[in-house]
Amino acid sequence: MNEKGLFITFEGGEAAGKSTLIKKVKEYLVSLEKDVLCTFEPGDTEFGKSIRAAVLDGNEKIPPEAEFFLYLADRAYHVEKMIMPALESGKMVLCDRFTDSSVAYQGEGRRFVSLERIEEMSLVATRGLTPDLTFYLDIDPKIAFKRLTGKKDRLEREDISFHEKVREGYLLLARDNPHRIVVINAEDTIEDVFAVTTKHLDELLKKTNLNKV
Amino acid sequence: MNEKGLFITFEGGEAAGKSTLIKKVKEYLVSLEKDVLCTFEPGDTEFGKSIRAAVLDGNEKIPPEAEFFLYLADRAYHVEKMIMPALESGKMVLCDRFTDSSVAYQGEGRRFVSLERIEEMSLVATRGLTPDLTFYLDIDPKIAFKRLTGKKDRLEREDISFHEKVREGYLLLARDNPHRIVVINAEDTIEDVFAVTTKHLDELLKKTNLNKV
Repeated sequence: MNEKGLFITFEGGEAAGKSTLIKKVKEYLVSLEKDVLCTFEPGDTEFGKSIRAAVLDGNEKIPPEAEFFLYLADRAYHVEKMIMPALESGKMVLCDRFTDSSVAYQGEGRRFVSLERIEEMSLVATRGLTPDLTFYLDIDPKIAFKRLTGKKDRLEREDISFHEKVREGYLLLARDNPHRIVVINAEDTIEDVFAVTTKHLDELLKKTNLNKV
Repeated sequence: MNEKGLFITFEGGEAAGKSTLIKKVKEYLVSLEKDVLCTFEPGDTEFGKSIRAAVLDGNEKIPPEAEFFLYLADRAYHVEKMIMPALESGKMVLCDRFTDSSVAYQGEGRRFVSLERIEEMSLVATRGLTPDLTFYLDIDPKIAFKRLTGKKDRLEREDISFHEKVREGYLLLARDNPHRIVVINAEDTIEDVFAVTTKHLDELLKKTNLNKV
């Protein structure tokens, strides 16, 4: 449990509905008079933006190891400069993607090293920071792809089997971290997804005695 | 031992004389009709240049973890796109800085994780590639600083005690890797430094049956 604020992460494949959910969760928490910071990985700092440009916006095929370490550099900066200060000032931090994304995407999707090693290396980047609660929006990649419109970035252009491996990675993580990761059926309506999310959030707030309602 | 070419790295603090030595070693190997690639870390690729710009050329203080992972991303790309192809085509690769720099600089100089973990993470970046031979140019930082002129980058601006810790890191590495790392007294004349270097190079070439002289 992080000492002052609470650190909540949102995970899932492309078009699982993370952004919509985070927006609703933020509104909910603000209605409870919580101080909320919404952020995301990769790239929600000036430092991270230039890295994101190098990884996702280029045409060149980058070795998976190089891509992985860029994400870790981005995360180390993000934790030190944005997430930790917010938590220390008592904020609730809602983060779109974190360590679990590295494990699921780099570990499972582009396997070059064990999932355990990826997690270990990410913990070096985060100085041991792990989320208090993680919502994993689970969806069949074939259904998610039908939701996708507009410009697709590199990851979205990759094939279904890659995204199926990513999903397996997430489900493995959820199995190994049942107390931290809540698996939500993202094929449900946003109202249902939101209802499950707030139920777990309310429990966490109650447990941490931060719930002033 | 790398299968086709030979991978030789040069390590040392600022102003130890690496560049001068590498230039002379290249000339020597070319005179032996070797095919030689000279390269350096960080930043000897387009990908690496943008990273180098972010790490060394900015004014902002970057968390050591972020800096470390940027170097690993640079290394992963460098190994995959430049060093491995050169070795596979039978070249001798002379590289100014490699994994030992990470261990000495990030590990010893800015301690945030054990030296062993740094080495392990670097091996993920290099896909297990280690140098066939490493020349460490050892010099008292106080003497090295007197050699420095012109524009100093961030590392060079740091204080003597940092460089003394880096030196300790290198000496520790040399102690633990006596067969790979040759410690050379860089306070000697360049002629003496070069003579010791070629003696060890000749031995390596003889051992690998690549010496056609």
